[in-house]
Amino acid sequence: MAGEKRAGILMAGTDRTQPMNFDPAPAIILCEPQLGENIGTAARAMANFGLWDLRLVAPRDGWPNDKARAAASRADHVVDRIRVFDTLAEAIADLSLVYATTARRRELAHEVIGPDEAARRLARHIGSAQRAGMVFGREKWGLYNEEVALCDAIVTLPVDPAFASLNIAQAVLVTAYEWRRETTQAALPFSSTEASLASKDELMGMYLQLEEALDRSGFFKTPEKRPTFIINLRTMLGKAGFSDQEVRTLRGILAALDRRHLYDKPGRGLPRRGRGKASDE
Amino acid sequence: MAGEKRAGILMAGTDRTQPMNFDPAPAIILCEPQLGENIGTAARAMANFGLWDLRLVAPRDGWPNDKARAAASRADHVVDRIRVFDTLAEAIADLSLVYATTARRRELAHEVIGPDEAARRLARHIGSAQRAGMVFGREKWGLYNEEVALCDAIVTLPVDPAFASLNIAQAVLVTAYEWRRETTQAALPFSSTEASLASKDELMGMYLQLEEALDRSGFFKTPEKRPTFIINLRTMLGKAGFSDQEVRTLRGILAALDRRHLYDKPGRGLPRRGRGKASDE
Repeated sequence: MAGEKRAGILMAGTDRTQPMNFDPAPAIILCEPQLGENIGTAARAMANFGLWDLRLVAPRDGWPNDKARAAASRADHVVDRIRVFDTLAEAIADLSLVYATTARRRELAHEVIGPDEAARRLARHIGSAQRAGMVFGREKWGLYNEEVALCDAIVTLPVDPAFASLNIAQAVLVTAYEWRRETTQAALPFSSTEASLASKDELMGMYLQLEEALDRSGFFKTPEKRPTFIINLRTMLGKAGFSDQEVRTLRGILAALDRRHLYDKPGRGLPRRGRGKASDE
Repeated sequence: MAGEKRAGILMAGTDRTQPMNFDPAPAIILCEPQLGENIGTAARAMANFGLWDLRLVAPRDGWPNDKARAAASRADHVVDRIRVFDTLAEAIADLSLVYATTARRRELAHEVIGPDEAARRLARHIGSAQRAGMVFGREKWGLYNEEVALCDAIVTLPVDPAFASLNIAQAVLVTAYEWRRETTQAALPFSSTEASLASKDELMGMYLQLEEALDRSGFFKTPEKRPTFIINLRTMLGKAGFSDQEVRTLRGILAALDRRHLYDKPGRGLPRRGRGKASDE
């Protein structure tokens, strides 16, 4: 239903006419990932936010992995480029800034930063043509201290301490999201539909039409309250920020209501004072 | 290995002594979710970032759902409170601010905002004791325009337009993450291990010990270069921001190296000028 309009180009929002993004970006390194699904979901999350360099250290079920491919949901440009290493040291050998993500405090002297600060530093580093990466631990118990010690700082997410255990692909997603926020100034893929706001003249035309219709309908039972009511009515309608098209639509609605008595049953075509809920309070 | 130290209290970072969080927070409404796994993963993501009010509109496989429970990874306090509704209108009936998340531009007059701006507005709204929520669409085709029209604005994520299709639980995660960032000022669950930086006096003690050891070792072949070298050496070591404990460790290392000739083979105990790679460049 929704989405059919531009089918073939759009797939749940993806614009397939756009080239895949291989701009310099941090590598994502997964240490001994156990589930192919998590590798695939991480790849998809990376693609969502413009990352593409995914490295695996000794994945439990080997590589390639069909479940990873399926879970990646067509993030093939990431999955196809996955590189596999025996050790973390090899996986990060070419990088000069590496962050370890962990959900637990460590008895290590590393600085601890959030994903937003990490993204800022990664962007500076990569912006000066140096390579960087982020390391993620095993699903069940994260990274060993020996592995964290190979990294420059610890990144942890601002989770609720009462429920801090984050799925690995979710952790990758948040860091990828912050990377993109930092490097694109949080640019959204589309913005509000362009609609020109109605001019004050167009609004006043609508207000007067409504007020005259109310006069004809006998809405104002106590004429001395009319001026204040009208100020409040105009204020209320002004808040909506109607477009010129919307004002035209509303004036059409108003005209139809105003003509309604012409189609009413005999004897009910006259202003019905005091009926229903209309009031000038 | 890592993590065993406080086993029983810590589970991959989760502190089970902390009470679950039921502070006022936005409801998350999933419209006709198809996969139980996604419901569960969304519940877990919510728990990670302090959300707990999850509502389902006509879940395809009914409710309860064992796969959802399993995927929630013990976010039981969220899963147990899930409410199921027949229509979106019923699911949002008690809310006064509702955002629709979508990955696609709509031909609707709604304002389009990012998850960060949404979190700011939700926090203001909920901070003034009003209820709010965020609506997420079906896995395959999102929300119908009729459903978006029930909402106050559109939230979209700053994805790469070339790969914009986000898993529903991932979308929930990003919005939950932004909610927590906004409402806790991105407080991290733990900070850098407290270590007092070495005082300048402690550092100077180490510098002098090193420089004297270098003098004894014959490191400075050209004495006139010594002052500049020492300035550069102190600058280089100062960058590390050593703690007092680290300075003591380094001074121990230095003392051991400085004594090394005592244990050397006969005839090799004297300063070895011009050997190896040491230089005063």
